Amino acid sequence: MLIVLKKTATKKQADHILAEIKKLKLKPVVSKGVEKTVIGVIGDEAKLRTKPLEVFAGVERVIDVQTPFKMVSREDHRQTSEIKLGKNLTIGGKEIVVMAGPCTVENKKRLLSLAHSVKESGATVLRGGAFKPRTSPYDFQGLGETGLKYLKAAKKETGLLVVTEMMDVRDLPLFEKYADIIQIGARNMQNYNLLKEVGKSKKPVLLKRGMANTIKDFLMAAEYIYSQGNHSVILCERGIRTFETSTRFSLDIGSVPVLKSETHLPVVIDPSHPAGKRKYVAALAKAGIAAGADGIIVEVHDNPEEAVCDGPQALLPDMFETLMTDLRKIAQAIGRSL
Amino acid sequence: MLIVLKKTATKKQADHILAEIKKLKLKPVVSKGVEKTVIGVIGDEAKLRTKPLEVFAGVERVIDVQTPFKMVSREDHRQTSEIKLGKNLTIGGKEIVVMAGPCTVENKKRLLSLAHSVKESGATVLRGGAFKPRTSPYDFQGLGETGLKYLKAAKKETGLLVVTEMMDVRDLPLFEKYADIIQIGARNMQNYNLLKEVGKSKKPVLLKRGMANTIKDFLMAAEYIYSQGNHSVILCERGIRTFETSTRFSLDIGSVPVLKSETHLPVVIDPSHPAGKRKYVAALAKAGIAAGADGIIVEVHDNPEEAVCDGPQALLPDMFETLMTDLRKIAQAIGRSL
Amino acid sequence: MLIVLKKTATKKQADHILAEIKKLKLKPVVSKGVEKTVIGVIGDEAKLRTKPLEVFAGVERVIDVQTPFKMVSREDHRQTSEIKLGKNLTIGGKEIVVMAGPCTVENKKRLLSLAHSVKESGATVLRGGAFKPRTSPYDFQGLGETGLKYLKAAKKETGLLVVTEMMDVRDLPLFEKYADIIQIGARNMQNYNLLKEVGKSKKPVLLKRGMANTIKDFLMAAEYIYSQGNHSVILCERGIRTFETSTRFSLDIGSVPVLKSETHLPVVIDPSHPAGKRKYVAALAKAGIAAGADGIIVEVHDNPEEAVCDGPQALLPDMFETLMTDLRKIAQAIGRSL
Amino acid sequence: MLIVLKKTATKKQADHILAEIKKLKLKPVVSKGVEKTVIGVIGDEAKLRTKPLEVFAGVERVIDVQTPFKMVSREDHRQTSEIKLGKNLTIGGKEIVVMAGPCTVENKKRLLSLAHSVKESGATVLRGGAFKPRTSPYDFQGLGETGLKYLKAAKKETGLLVVTEMMDVRDLPLFEKYADIIQIGARNMQNYNLLKEVGKSKKPVLLKRGMANTIKDFLMAAEYIYSQGNHSVILCERGIRTFETSTRFSLDIGSVPVLKSETHLPVVIDPSHPAGKRKYVAALAKAGIAAGADGIIVEVHDNPEEAVCDGPQALLPDMFETLMTDLRKIAQAIGRSL
Repeated sequence: MLIVLKKTATKKQADHILAEIKKLKLKPVVSKGVEKTVIGVIGDEAKLRTKPLEVFAGVERVIDVQTPFKMVSREDHRQTSEIKLGKNLTIGGKEIVVMAGPCTVENKKRLLSLAHSVKESGATVLRGGAFKPRTSPYDFQGLGETGLKYLKAAKKETGLLVVTEMMDVRDLPLFEKYADIIQIGARNMQNYNLLKEVGKSKKPVLLKRGMANTIKDFLMAAEYIYSQGNHSVILCERGIRTFETSTRFSLDIGSVPVLKSETHLPVVIDPSHPAGKRKYVAALAKAGIAAGADGIIVEVHDNPEEAVCDGPQALLPDMFETLMTDLRKIAQAIGRSL
Repeated sequence: MLIVLKKTATKKQADHILAEIKKLKLKPVVSKGVEKTVIGVIGDEAKLRTKPLEVFAGVERVIDVQTPFKMVSREDHRQTSEIKLGKNLTIGGKEIVVMAGPCTVENKKRLLSLAHSVKESGATVLRGGAFKPRTSPYDFQGLGETGLKYLKAAKKETGLLVVTEMMDVRDLPLFEKYADIIQIGARNMQNYNLLKEVGKSKKPVLLKRGMANTIKDFLMAAEYIYSQGNHSVILCERGIRTFETSTRFSLDIGSVPVLKSETHLPVVIDPSHPAGKRKYVAALAKAGIAAGADGIIVEVHDNPEEAVCDGPQALLPDMFETLMTDLRKIAQAIGRSL
Repeated sequence: MLIVLKKTATKKQADHILAEIKKLKLKPVVSKGVEKTVIGVIGDEAKLRTKPLEVFAGVERVIDVQTPFKMVSREDHRQTSEIKLGKNLTIGGKEIVVMAGPCTVENKKRLLSLAHSVKESGATVLRGGAFKPRTSPYDFQGLGETGLKYLKAAKKETGLLVVTEMMDVRDLPLFEKYADIIQIGARNMQNYNLLKEVGKSKKPVLLKRGMANTIKDFLMAAEYIYSQGNHSVILCERGIRTFETSTRFSLDIGSVPVLKSETHLPVVIDPSHPAGKRKYVAALAKAGIAAGADGIIVEVHDNPEEAVCDGPQALLPDMFETLMTDLRKIAQAIGRSL
Repeated sequence: MLIVLKKTATKKQADHILAEIKKLKLKPVVSKGVEKTVIGVIGDEAKLRTKPLEVFAGVERVIDVQTPFKMVSREDHRQTSEIKLGKNLTIGGKEIVVMAGPCTVENKKRLLSLAHSVKESGATVLRGGAFKPRTSPYDFQGLGETGLKYLKAAKKETGLLVVTEMMDVRDLPLFEKYADIIQIGARNMQNYNLLKEVGKSKKPVLLKRGMANTIKDFLMAAEYIYSQGNHSVILCERGIRTFETSTRFSLDIGSVPVLKSETHLPVVIDPSHPAGKRKYVAALAKAGIAAGADGIIVEVHDNPEEAVCDGPQALLPDMFETLMTDLRKIAQAIGRSL
């Protein structure tokens, strides 16, 4: 940690800060510059983080040198973690994982038909919401447990694993029973009690980045889950909020190389939500894979006119089939498989 | 609702859309333009919102004419709602309400001393967190129920009402017991289950705007609470995330006149979180009141060096005293009181 | 300047950096931390800024301690500069300056009538564009020199000073002749050649913040003008681009206290462009003054139905009159005059 | 154009608007809804754009149905324009164009050596700045005409075409003489006089998107150039400003499919500026090509320690060589060549 003092800081102020640092059994190193003095602190910064050093008289700025996330950091863990999703499926290795399915589970028949369809095209995980976070209280809120049962039924028929969103801290037992991967949605990325709850589970967690959260926030949220004992955390970039409105969100493609550089956790791209419109989805999916993502999670629907949510951004089954063919070629071009 | 067709839309596509509209017992009105055709829909748009019209072949764009929020809208409710907070205190009328106190309840002694201090300066509500949403899992997470008890004790001693944040759907009984106003934090603004939960309460709710949420999202979140039966909703602007980093967040001062124009709910400004630094807080508070806010919620601490959270942005008691004097003059200048 | 080395940095890499620092006659101070080493550099940082230290092997991060702007900084210039605008008018002192008028000069008659009107309400500077930056090439681009002549005529009749926008480096002689204050628009805030050009003038410059520019960028742009010899620079906050669309831009009200803390230059608020709609303008103007701005620049039009640009955000003369009355009271409440 | 009336609009107000529409020889179509009335306008919207309809009494909102950009729109021009850059080089066809070189022209020797190097790796256009827009007035501002001469010399030796940035309206003759492609930088995207100036040239223009400009703004800027008679406009996405700071800018990868859908102009990606750090550049370049871009423009430097600008984001020649190999495979995977 570096503490930059104001030009006007007095000796007394500096001494007070040095005393505080020593009280915490840390070692200060002072550099007196032409304009300003900087105090470097040697030792575990975490101790000092509980002290609001910015408020000490004479302090201009405090700069972290160590990263605040530890367990998910790549610093001491140079390989991407390969996380087991199911019997024969891992994520974070050479193989790219494709998760596909409807926004919401609408009814059993449609779900099964879609599950078969995406499986044939090459998906290995089925996505679908049973509990839906909807902007309007008047919109369809999901089938609840019934939806989870249909997902389980689809798994039984097709062998696809199931990823589905959990929104409520009280629902963990349900998800333990029905889901293979628990999704935490973007709107709940900083719902810390929910993070702690899934941190107690053994199920892999797909953590979506909040639409206004920095990559640092994102990794801190992952650290919440990880530090509770659940090390199977998968990060999902799904677009951030910017001033641009021609797409629903702005896919932060730069987050892929940044995450690959900062953390050992696998990274998945959701091209559907940032696209907002079906015609933009394939380009974003291809970009994500080319940039180095370990997987994608994409919405597919066979009759968008009847979709109860996010119809405009769902790929039609034949578009998905084409996309898979293209992704396979790109995966190969970059030395991966799909 | 207006449905703009693509230049290339066929008659068959148009007819299919018209048929769907009629099926829902709505009336379509067609305007054939030089370049494009527009279908206006007459009747309750809510019916059509369940149909993803954007996905229909031939459709270029769908435009809402009616607002999606109804109960919180000012359209049919022209006066600001005056909400009762306690025996002698309301918000939304002529009187400006000041809520002040520490970020977190740290211990009983300090809380009581601070409560007396802010009361003397003119605050009528005490703020303080017992459950804290912290970015890092390693940071202090709050005293929990003990913190709520201290707040209640401070109320007993000073007569100040208590506003404090609820983060977990399971905690409503606790908040019913100890709090006068339940705060929903920015990170939970779209935690819909939490919104529904406080919607069942009779306690006033202070709903903070999420850092990446539009004013429309904000009003939809308020509608969640309102539509559950709790009509005592107070909106709090606390800064949005932008590219500017010299302040912690960017206070969206424009949201004050927009909210005053769009909704009948009272509006409060939090100048502390956007400021991030103590020296910027007073300017934001004054701006908020001058822009028409019905109240402010501000952090005050008597020893920021020992604050366990947000020390840098807490006003010292004498700064708060000065601010109150200034706000009183501004309130008077704009025809309000404080 | 602080140079944080990577955990993996070798001694050889560190020595190479130390040698470079010494070559520039600067003094390095090394602090070896538990995790990382930090090199502090003592001396004039400007020398090192020409060296891209981030690229040196072993470097993780480079942190500026000194501000990159010097002449406009408040560090060694603690008082706000009071800039002379005309014979009896300065900005930056106790008196708040109000600049008002149409978006564009449309014709002589209307301009004169508006000039009289805003003067009667208390404005001391007339705004109006003769050269207009328009998003569309098909929109009205301004009257050019004729517009400048009308402004000069209005000045003659009313005694109002004239502020008007310069867009082209070739136009300085025209502005020297007709304008009292030269405005640099938001879209040209980083048109460095234009900044240099007005830097050679003796006329005060009203520099508008670019819609995506940080406060640091803004001050660097001011430094461009200042460092050319023109010290009469007035900063104008006019809203930044964010995800919020209910207003045209988001007025960054926090920039007022930040600028007051970082620079000695006077600060003006433009409430019209961020509002986008007339009904939001007054609230933003009042907020700006309450936050500590030294003036406002506001659009007024007596027949917005015929305005060739920005009609929706122009105040009607009677709204402007009411605003002035309100601002006068707020000015008084905060110890200033208007 | 659609004009939505307020719920409270009177018949008189509606009649006034209808009369105005008819005055312009346009045809209004009225749809009276349950809540609101909408007036559709049939005919050329451009006429009405000069009327600020939002300001008419009784109007709630005005919605454009036609796009404001015409000549660059894909609506009536379904194929991507293939633009001739040099004797044997076009952009917008099957072949992907790679432009590479240093941020700034520093000296002749280094430029020639770099030119040979990037050519060997497969670039066909040499980039390099002679006039540099620098945030600080104290930074190196470029070699000016001398720099242009060195670029011309490099072209002579290697056969590479030259793209270089023009910042000043007075410099067109210089660029006509030395450059093959004139670059308009992000900071000048809305410097309309500059756009008009290059619109008079016959040289292809590479127009960079401003960091806060929407795609619509971007296309309007292209329309400025195009409508002056210069139809050789190439669009370059180079990252937008968002709240994320781990990269220098956020590459808006979604702009690639949006631009491909909205305009017939070719699209190029600049992966260097958004990356900000060398290690992130390759991922962004690959993403851009996979998303459908027609080319990239990338910074390469053989001794970043001595680069006078943007050293941290310049690829080393061997990294560029590796990137080209990877891009070639991705190009092939998506049916293009490089």
